[in-house]
Amino acid sequence: MSTEIERKFLVAELPDLSGAEKAVVRQGYLTAPDDSTELRLRQKNDKFFLTLKGSGAMVRIEREAEITAEQFETFWPETDGRRVEKERYTGQLPDGRVFELDVFSGDLSPLLLVEVEFQSEAEAQAYTPPAWFGADVTADKRYKNKTMAINGVPA
Amino acid sequence: MSTEIERKFLVAELPDLSGAEKAVVRQGYLTAPDDSTELRLRQKNDKFFLTLKGSGAMVRIEREAEITAEQFETFWPETDGRRVEKERYTGQLPDGRVFELDVFSGDLSPLLLVEVEFQSEAEAQAYTPPAWFGADVTADKRYKNKTMAINGVPA
Repeated sequence: MSTEIERKFLVAELPDLSGAEKAVVRQGYLTAPDDSTELRLRQKNDKFFLTLKGSGAMVRIEREAEITAEQFETFWPETDGRRVEKERYTGQLPDGRVFELDVFSGDLSPLLLVEVEFQSEAEAQAYTPPAWFGADVTADKRYKNKTMAINGVPA
Repeated sequence: MSTEIERKFLVAELPDLSGAEKAVVRQGYLTAPDDSTELRLRQKNDKFFLTLKGSGAMVRIEREAEITAEQFETFWPETDGRRVEKERYTGQLPDGRVFELDVFSGDLSPLLLVEVEFQSEAEAQAYTPPAWFGADVTADKRYKNKTMAINGVPA
């Protein structure tokens, strides 16, 4: 189990991504938003994963297994209408922090989102984003991947 | 996808099972009964499966993949409280039909259920069960594995 302290922003201007690492990601949900459990299929480049997230309020259990391409393809059709496809660029900011920039494709194109992870809440709150970052959408649930998979890009 | 025409009975008296094939089965559900999708983990002897059943009213899609023991064990803890364990004996009746006799263990012990599959509804309706069969519970949803996994043996 992991606890992540992150902030999420829109992107005002694409930065130079020549030094960033690129991964092609597609993910889809086998369960509906109101179901008690979340089961997500994810392909990241040539690796495939099945992830379960429990429904606990305080503590949300997460279990993940790497699966084969064949297993992925068996269940992938059932995620129809609940999918997110994107390219993820992982790079370094001038202050040494790591950013993850998602360039959405398919129905969510041309949305861009960037995330930065922190070691503490204090650090996250004190953070001053670079100029190429746009509005802070950390608290805006409409920008969650799971929500956008069904509802699309927030209007 | 498959359509099965089956009848299910209680067992009045255990038959001679010396000629039957025995499999040890444990299965558990990752999803709750009210969820839109059913995801079931099943171990049958030394094989492991993940099965998804959709929520369609008329047609219920079923997708199944064989998984590894390691993948099974990753998600199995999440089926806690929603499990069925049984020994399944597959044998032949004097008329040539195949029976599947489930000897439940764990919380469902000492329940016994037997199923026979038919080629048509007419054949199923005309069927006269052997003397060792008990009451017909085909239409009694309380005897569904998924229901008993949570509610236990019908009172």
